[in-house]
Amino acid sequence: MTEESNSPSLGQNEKTNKQLLLHKVPKGISGSEDFTVRETPIPQPGLGEVLVEAHYLGVDAALRLITRDSDEFLFRVKPGDLVHGSAAGRIVASQHPELRVGDYVVGSLGIQNFAVSDGAGLERCDLSQAPLGAWLGGFGVSGLTAYFALTEECKPQPGQTVLINGAAGAVGSIAGQICRLAGCRVIGLTGSDAKCRWLQDTLGYHAAINYHDPDWYAQLEEAAPDRLDIIFDNVGGTLLDESLKLIGMRGVVLLCGSTSQYPAAHMSGPANYIWLGTMRARLQGFVVFDYASRYAEARNTMSRWMANDELILPAWEVPGDIEVFPTAYQQMYEGKNLGKTLVRLPAADAQPASQ
Amino acid sequence: MTEESNSPSLGQNEKTNKQLLLHKVPKGISGSEDFTVRETPIPQPGLGEVLVEAHYLGVDAALRLITRDSDEFLFRVKPGDLVHGSAAGRIVASQHPELRVGDYVVGSLGIQNFAVSDGAGLERCDLSQAPLGAWLGGFGVSGLTAYFALTEECKPQPGQTVLINGAAGAVGSIAGQICRLAGCRVIGLTGSDAKCRWLQDTLGYHAAINYHDPDWYAQLEEAAPDRLDIIFDNVGGTLLDESLKLIGMRGVVLLCGSTSQYPAAHMSGPANYIWLGTMRARLQGFVVFDYASRYAEARNTMSRWMANDELILPAWEVPGDIEVFPTAYQQMYEGKNLGKTLVRLPAADAQPASQ
Repeated sequence: MTEESNSPSLGQNEKTNKQLLLHKVPKGISGSEDFTVRETPIPQPGLGEVLVEAHYLGVDAALRLITRDSDEFLFRVKPGDLVHGSAAGRIVASQHPELRVGDYVVGSLGIQNFAVSDGAGLERCDLSQAPLGAWLGGFGVSGLTAYFALTEECKPQPGQTVLINGAAGAVGSIAGQICRLAGCRVIGLTGSDAKCRWLQDTLGYHAAINYHDPDWYAQLEEAAPDRLDIIFDNVGGTLLDESLKLIGMRGVVLLCGSTSQYPAAHMSGPANYIWLGTMRARLQGFVVFDYASRYAEARNTMSRWMANDELILPAWEVPGDIEVFPTAYQQMYEGKNLGKTLVRLPAADAQPASQ
Repeated sequence: MTEESNSPSLGQNEKTNKQLLLHKVPKGISGSEDFTVRETPIPQPGLGEVLVEAHYLGVDAALRLITRDSDEFLFRVKPGDLVHGSAAGRIVASQHPELRVGDYVVGSLGIQNFAVSDGAGLERCDLSQAPLGAWLGGFGVSGLTAYFALTEECKPQPGQTVLINGAAGAVGSIAGQICRLAGCRVIGLTGSDAKCRWLQDTLGYHAAINYHDPDWYAQLEEAAPDRLDIIFDNVGGTLLDESLKLIGMRGVVLLCGSTSQYPAAHMSGPANYIWLGTMRARLQGFVVFDYASRYAEARNTMSRWMANDELILPAWEVPGDIEVFPTAYQQMYEGKNLGKTLVRLPAADAQPASQ
């Protein structure tokens, strides 16, 4: 196996690597004061490694879970640590036998401009299938989560009624479209009238309800006269709890995320879980990584839908360098995003080939 | 179809029918002050009907749920109503084509001495399979719930670890034995050291933990080093919430009941439900009535186990007439029972054939 060693002299000596570090354990939704930016030299790849320059950073609600002051969760970011997160970018130096300079990749590289990787956990991005940013969103873990959670656990059938809690978010925006393609009646719960219109006009939801309306539950009851066959829950809290009262016979409540609970000092559970009993329903946990060997299959299906204008991969891009990440994160929690929230780094504009 | 009409003159003219009525909506666990007893004439069966004299009354935790001041549940007992409940007894008059005087039956007949029925919902009890009282407990809905919830939803496998929350109760006491027969390591959570000993010595549980011990969760962690494949939950509340942190990969949390929540002014849900996500586990609702066509199959299997001394059907009998029911109910909530709680009415002793 020969090795094409690209020079580690990058012609980028004017650049440094900005890294986002957790400064302190956040209270409530995290903000800029919880993070610091450190500038370090750009690292160099060793034998068998590559250097990736990030173009996009994925903004994930789960970050708030792993920055909690608790060892209860399987992964933890402590003050002083590099903030965990996914990035999509371009290989700018390689001493790796298979990954070459110019390849576009996505992976868990941390919130920084440059990362060295031995290739484990990196996926090559075929930009003819979807643009680079989408590989962090609808064509990445968010979209794949919607795809496999639905096809493997929820199995939506024509004529069923589906509720998506957090319908305009990274996962919900894809999940609703897939259920529409399966022939379901799709209802979305989201946080503004503008997002309701977007869900209906752009994503083809049959109904959309603003959960800030005082009568949102009555609206939901009216929109789902035959109860709910599937509740696809991304948010937990009150929306999950109330909607459980409408779960249908042998329904599935897919537990995709609990974003409303991640910042809570004391998490709370859904008291209406007892409705699962009466309705022979189930609250089902799900982790997309179990399906890693089948991502290509899902992407082929999604590409076909995209080519037929049946599926779009919405992304909400916040332009800026590493220091903009906390703001983008906060805005996502405030519900400003339509679809996946991304930070679009300056490198994305310096390399228009990746668009 | 000929009709053997038994005389409605019962030779029981000295008797009346005592009926337990709900007096007011209970606060907390219900007590004697929440009920009244009304004496009425013994009703007479019309054409196609039978008169059943109750020997045993089933004491069910779910009564507290349906006496709540809420129309949220599918069935409701309001102040002034006859208290809903199951009874096992003997047919003492019949104008029914198939049910005869002397037949033993069980059904939802209400908390009273005598009930008229058209036979719908009555089951004939074969006392050679199990004694009459057991048809309200281990051989009735409680035991059948354990049997079908396990065989159809939990599917316990040899070597798995199972936790029974409310292990000494009507359902839990059967569920633990069935899991032991399936080759599982069975852990019981219950409310006293005496019950712990009984679970281990009499029912063959591998471990039993008193949830009043301040370190009960640490004991549970120690008893389940490989986490829990099945949590069979009868109680909800803190026991469910804490035990969810130990659910194993692709585990099943069977939602059999939530007795701790039925008397609560505000029900609470398990905040640790998010562990279902990480562990790809599910919280599964279940209703035994879906399996009504297969009760005979389950009872045949259970009879075989009983004949081999592999299964016992524990019952805790409180002797007395209708007015003892609220006390029996309260004592069950205080955890005095081992297995199913029954009121053994005077008629049971007047008819020793039914023992």
